[in-house]
Amino acid sequence: MEGIRIIEVKESIFEDNNRDAENLRCQLKEEKTFLLNLMSSPGSGKTSTLLALAEELKRRGNPLRWAVMEADIDSTVDAQTIENAGIPSIQIHTGGMCHLDADMTRQGLTELKKRMSAEEDPQTDLVILENVGNLVCPAEFDTGAVKNMTILSVPEGHDKPLKYPLMYETCHLLVVNKIDVEPYFDFDREKLVEFARKRNPDIEIIFISAKTGEGIDKLVDWLTAQTEDWIR
Amino acid sequence: MEGIRIIEVKESIFEDNNRDAENLRCQLKEEKTFLLNLMSSPGSGKTSTLLALAEELKRRGNPLRWAVMEADIDSTVDAQTIENAGIPSIQIHTGGMCHLDADMTRQGLTELKKRMSAEEDPQTDLVILENVGNLVCPAEFDTGAVKNMTILSVPEGHDKPLKYPLMYETCHLLVVNKIDVEPYFDFDREKLVEFARKRNPDIEIIFISAKTGEGIDKLVDWLTAQTEDWIR
Repeated sequence: MEGIRIIEVKESIFEDNNRDAENLRCQLKEEKTFLLNLMSSPGSGKTSTLLALAEELKRRGNPLRWAVMEADIDSTVDAQTIENAGIPSIQIHTGGMCHLDADMTRQGLTELKKRMSAEEDPQTDLVILENVGNLVCPAEFDTGAVKNMTILSVPEGHDKPLKYPLMYETCHLLVVNKIDVEPYFDFDREKLVEFARKRNPDIEIIFISAKTGEGIDKLVDWLTAQTEDWIR
Repeated sequence: MEGIRIIEVKESIFEDNNRDAENLRCQLKEEKTFLLNLMSSPGSGKTSTLLALAEELKRRGNPLRWAVMEADIDSTVDAQTIENAGIPSIQIHTGGMCHLDADMTRQGLTELKKRMSAEEDPQTDLVILENVGNLVCPAEFDTGAVKNMTILSVPEGHDKPLKYPLMYETCHLLVVNKIDVEPYFDFDREKLVEFARKRNPDIEIIFISAKTGEGIDKLVDWLTAQTEDWIR
């Protein structure tokens, strides 16, 4: 295994990010790649959810060819962890920026293609972009992803949709993580669902524990169906 | 009790935020008010730590006259909770902005003074600004506060100083919250201290549980000493 590929993305030159994001989605459709934008607070379990996904996909005989782009302000901790689990991965450094836009995502995808050329089969059906841990700014910028997913972990509390409305409005899937520690927190599932649906009546919700693996099968079902629907 | 005072802050007109923040600190010195800027991820327990502080300060016979400014993108959940605990509070709405700068903080302080005029004694020795839940952007903008404090909760993991370096570099105090659930998480205190000190050798660290009250006495000692040192 070679060292982690790090790309320092540059600030976008495009004035109209929304149009640029649409262009990127068209390109992804042509290339038959489903891009998922994964967002959450710091420490909600984005990387450990990816590791749990890897395990369940492996158990199913790897039906998807997939790769991961890890975005962080600094460090290569996450990309290294993902590579160690056997998933091709690159690290995107945002240089202090609190989010990714479509052009920065495109820069990452270009670098990912170089990384994939080292693989026997360089095609990716699914690319997961782990965005910067932040509930505010990433929600404001369309990355060009086909779908947006956010993770809320039980210890953060069920009131988050009230405080970070845009994150819930822009996400297609809400994954509630760390349900294994639910007995130790004052967490109200019904209220969470009520608050999340208030922001976004169409949001899908899956409860998981990345640690114990509970619910991961549902998440893999969702991801597989979404990817197949996009690339067929 | 009147309804929560909400201020919709406007984007700053000042080009040089650092100079503006210095001016605000001078003003606070003159007015004998210690301003603490409290930052963290969403759901780390900023508001519940304030509630625990209120209880311990009350137990000590309220040695400080204090008030709270709650900054959020939306909702008045937090300010209402603080007012219900008997602490004068206002709600700052950032209109989608991911941070506060010195001018926005000043707008909040002006509104807080109006709120305080309803009190028998309108003087504040200590004002705590609960910044937007975000580890990235708030760290980039000097609010004019005398000291910065960040909360890391155990469920977020001990690797956060590696990923959000600026937050740790700019903070004088790191409070580690939710130690009551430490047995249920893979959390390494020694590594956390090592990573935090790597970012900031002078950072002070206090371990607490806002839920059980453990360690809150140390936090109140720190706050009281800092405030007295500033306003004497």
